[in-house]
Amino acid sequence: MGSIFDKILSGDIPSYKIYEDEHVYSFLDINPISRGHALVIPREAKAKLHELSDESSAAIGRALPRLCRAVMAASGADDYNILQNNGAPAHQAVFHVHFHIIPKFSDSGLGVGWKQGSLAPDIAQELLASIHQSLESQS
Amino acid sequence: MGSIFDKILSGDIPSYKIYEDEHVYSFLDINPISRGHALVIPREAKAKLHELSDESSAAIGRALPRLCRAVMAASGADDYNILQNNGAPAHQAVFHVHFHIIPKFSDSGLGVGWKQGSLAPDIAQELLASIHQSLESQS
Repeated sequence: MGSIFDKILSGDIPSYKIYEDEHVYSFLDINPISRGHALVIPREAKAKLHELSDESSAAIGRALPRLCRAVMAASGADDYNILQNNGAPAHQAVFHVHFHIIPKFSDSGLGVGWKQGSLAPDIAQELLASIHQSLESQS
Repeated sequence: MGSIFDKILSGDIPSYKIYEDEHVYSFLDINPISRGHALVIPREAKAKLHELSDESSAAIGRALPRLCRAVMAASGADDYNILQNNGAPAHQAVFHVHFHIIPKFSDSGLGVGWKQGSLAPDIAQELLASIHQSLESQS
């Protein structure tokens, strides 16, 4: 079953379109957390980023700098966050990959909760061994 | 003056390297907010995403899905956030573009503060006019 973003991509639901190309579609978030809050999505219907094709993900990457320039110019913000959530526990609400461009103002924008620790060398080596094995298996 | 990431890229400061290619370098965050917390940076030294070249940004986009697969495999997480901060008010601490890959667990990961509003049609049209003008001026 498709998400609401499929209906936006097909035109069945209207959107405030910012930009589109072969792989990418961008529009204003209708429930913004700050002025200018925008979304950038692939046409490819995948729920999480790790499922997306390299081609779609590269196309989003390519479009982001110019979209950020345009959204900052329009919103008047100097600062902003890019956020892309994967999975309901990580705050994902629509299960089609989407990148948020969220202008940051003193009274609005993304709240960032950050409790950092320290990476122990033995944990780092354990993680790296597993990460490198996974990357090798993908190549 | 360069950031600490310049010194990591040059090898003057060691890092737990995950991946590198012509445009992209990825390594473990030494102050992780969850197990497997990783960073993905361009070799290009720009502070904010809107300053980055299309080429560098596309290369990061292309690398992200495979890096996410590897980090999730190693961390054991199913859910995760991608976060990229621009400007000190938006929680940026190192002024070289970096994308965080942050696995989400029930007791660790990114805290998301989200106070959404509703987009009024007149505001939407005002924003779109300005965004489209900016995009046209960039093309």
